[in-house]
Amino acid sequence: MNILDILEKKKNGINLNKEEIEFFIKGYTDGTIADYQAAALIMAICINGMNEEEILNLTVAMTNSGDKIDFSDIADNIVDKHSTGGVGDKVTIILAPIISALGVPVAKMSGRGLGITGGTADKLASIPGYDLEISIEEFKKNVKEIGISLITQSLNLAPADKKIYALRDSISCTNSIPLISSSIMSKKIASGANAIVLDVTCGNGAFAKNVIEARELANLMKKIGNLAGKPTVCVLTSMEEPLGRFVGNILEIKESVEFLKGNFEEDVKEVVLEIGSRMLALAGFSNDFDYNKDKMLEVINNGKALEKFIQLVERQKGDLSYIYNLDKFEKAKYVLPIYSDKDGYVSKLDALTIGKVSVGLGAGRIKKEDSIDYTVGLELCKKVSDKVSNGEIIAKIYAKSEEDAVKFSSQVFSAFEISKDVVNYKSPIIEII
Amino acid sequence: MNILDILEKKKNGINLNKEEIEFFIKGYTDGTIADYQAAALIMAICINGMNEEEILNLTVAMTNSGDKIDFSDIADNIVDKHSTGGVGDKVTIILAPIISALGVPVAKMSGRGLGITGGTADKLASIPGYDLEISIEEFKKNVKEIGISLITQSLNLAPADKKIYALRDSISCTNSIPLISSSIMSKKIASGANAIVLDVTCGNGAFAKNVIEARELANLMKKIGNLAGKPTVCVLTSMEEPLGRFVGNILEIKESVEFLKGNFEEDVKEVVLEIGSRMLALAGFSNDFDYNKDKMLEVINNGKALEKFIQLVERQKGDLSYIYNLDKFEKAKYVLPIYSDKDGYVSKLDALTIGKVSVGLGAGRIKKEDSIDYTVGLELCKKVSDKVSNGEIIAKIYAKSEEDAVKFSSQVFSAFEISKDVVNYKSPIIEII
Repeated sequence: MNILDILEKKKNGINLNKEEIEFFIKGYTDGTIADYQAAALIMAICINGMNEEEILNLTVAMTNSGDKIDFSDIADNIVDKHSTGGVGDKVTIILAPIISALGVPVAKMSGRGLGITGGTADKLASIPGYDLEISIEEFKKNVKEIGISLITQSLNLAPADKKIYALRDSISCTNSIPLISSSIMSKKIASGANAIVLDVTCGNGAFAKNVIEARELANLMKKIGNLAGKPTVCVLTSMEEPLGRFVGNILEIKESVEFLKGNFEEDVKEVVLEIGSRMLALAGFSNDFDYNKDKMLEVINNGKALEKFIQLVERQKGDLSYIYNLDKFEKAKYVLPIYSDKDGYVSKLDALTIGKVSVGLGAGRIKKEDSIDYTVGLELCKKVSDKVSNGEIIAKIYAKSEEDAVKFSSQVFSAFEISKDVVNYKSPIIEII
Repeated sequence: MNILDILEKKKNGINLNKEEIEFFIKGYTDGTIADYQAAALIMAICINGMNEEEILNLTVAMTNSGDKIDFSDIADNIVDKHSTGGVGDKVTIILAPIISALGVPVAKMSGRGLGITGGTADKLASIPGYDLEISIEEFKKNVKEIGISLITQSLNLAPADKKIYALRDSISCTNSIPLISSSIMSKKIASGANAIVLDVTCGNGAFAKNVIEARELANLMKKIGNLAGKPTVCVLTSMEEPLGRFVGNILEIKESVEFLKGNFEEDVKEVVLEIGSRMLALAGFSNDFDYNKDKMLEVINNGKALEKFIQLVERQKGDLSYIYNLDKFEKAKYVLPIYSDKDGYVSKLDALTIGKVSVGLGAGRIKKEDSIDYTVGLELCKKVSDKVSNGEIIAKIYAKSEEDAVKFSSQVFSAFEISKDVVNYKSPIIEII
């Protein structure tokens, strides 16, 4: 077997078999297959596609390319949760303590943000002292003792995926459903969870621009998960507008703590409850989703979820004084309000634009090496369906300088569309697959 | 402009404009575009194709990536000749002195062989002393003074093509008509000829496996040449069986000298006369092709063509004693005859198999770095349409050892098909475009 024959086949639209895919993944991981050969194959896959069998084989080969975590020594049933990416997505930070407060262990590795999609790891890192890079032993110990740990990926999980992901980024091959689904699932399977709930975002601010694409991606990932012996449920959620009121690292941590105090944004609440109720069901808590949702609200209302979050932060060496007093967090140097120029109702709030502005302000990364400013971001004072008056503040830009704020002001303004007609609130939950 | 947008376009099957193609060629030549990005783009081009405008722009950009030769100081009208590659192709070595003997200057750079296609440069290099790497000044001086020079490419002609050609080889993207035509034409245009005759080979031993592919390639190259201001004529010739009786470097030099002495193989003669008559016409000698052919035969019969060849070899420091006494050439260590096992007529002599055996024996290269054994090769004692008796020699393997000869004997045997029915000789000339 050699890479030239594999390239020739995929170039001509012929399906690759298991051995060929394993040969490619093994060779690319150990360096015997060159970057340019992998790039050519990835481009051929992007153009000619892959069938389900190929995608499953690719996923398994990438999973097997590195370390695999085993939680069997600490818990019987670890349920993982993953989002395909969104703007203002703080769901993991809110969900994890809620689930854990209900006695279901949460052991989660989260990624850093790249592009318009923020990363849970970056948000947690904005809590002074919070250590995301504790050892795997400490990680497991925390899960065993307090039922929760949130860290960033430090093990050598799916290194083939890491190499391919970086390569895809540099050859315009990110938006391929076979490659996205195998990338996500290879890491999830290697992460050792027994079951997985996927938040498949859908809309302008997500990879899947419409429901049809989101369904394709969801069905594929569900199939891969199930075939790999990891029961998988997909919750399709809307990413037409950002989730919640805030976008930016410290801003979202504050919003998350507020949520755990019972100060809900409706859209965030719906997504948290829907995904959480599914996670609880997969963990064997109860198959009654409404019951699960009620229980989740209960641990918010009785303070147990917040208590769990505090326990988590404390264990991972975060400075709790910031959580007790959110006002202590460092603030952006400059805040610029954006005003509506008409009366009406917000009919659109473009997630992609807000995501780009957020990265532009320094809240996210364009390249892996970019550093992040935890203080900057956006407050969305008005969201879709909100009534707005001429001259009223619709958003606030949190920037590191006046110059920066002004630079992005017209973009933020243009992200809003305001109609004369009443716009009804629409649930962000699209469907469950 | 950036390479990611260019990759995105071609991935989606959108045509690239002139500026984008120039950006890619410039960036890849100067190293600002990485190998893996170029590999991904080439794969996308292979799969999604290029239209004529893109191919012309690619050709011109590659031509402009390096040196360009200017013959205007030594001759008004230099006609170049190029073959898309074949087995046993010694046409240039025979044609060049004939054309020159008719007063039309020949200034030709030939390549080394790669794969089953032998290279004119390697064949000339098998003449002891022959210097293929004289300076461009000496090259021009020879053309001016004796009307002929044959060298190998030493200048930095179309370096972008050189890089892309090597990359294509390592990512299974050699057989792409847009890439082949632009590769050939970029070098031809940079080589400074005023007009070009292309021998477009067609059949099992050629890139173009059938007449339809050969026509597509020919039409494309003709169009590129004409648009670039270089009148181009394509002669489609058959490469189902090897050209002539010998394959291998010294063996083909001997066969070429024999030809110039008037000892013709019919198929070689037809190709030489057809291509030569077109070259002469483009050079302004005469537009009457039959007249041109007669004149070519005349300089063979009166010895002037051989005399010109001797002059050429002498000027380039080749040892003439080998030409005067062909028997002096080093001989293969071992010669193994292959016999027919039936009576009949040769109905097929597979060029691809013979080409592969020839490379296997050491007459050609698989990789650029491979060294060549000038003595080895094949003698095809019987060719298509020849009558053959059971037990008669159909071919001879010239090998460096008995072991090697035996190793390839069954392959050579299997290259022949012998039918009971009479097989008529078929001209190798398919059509002129």
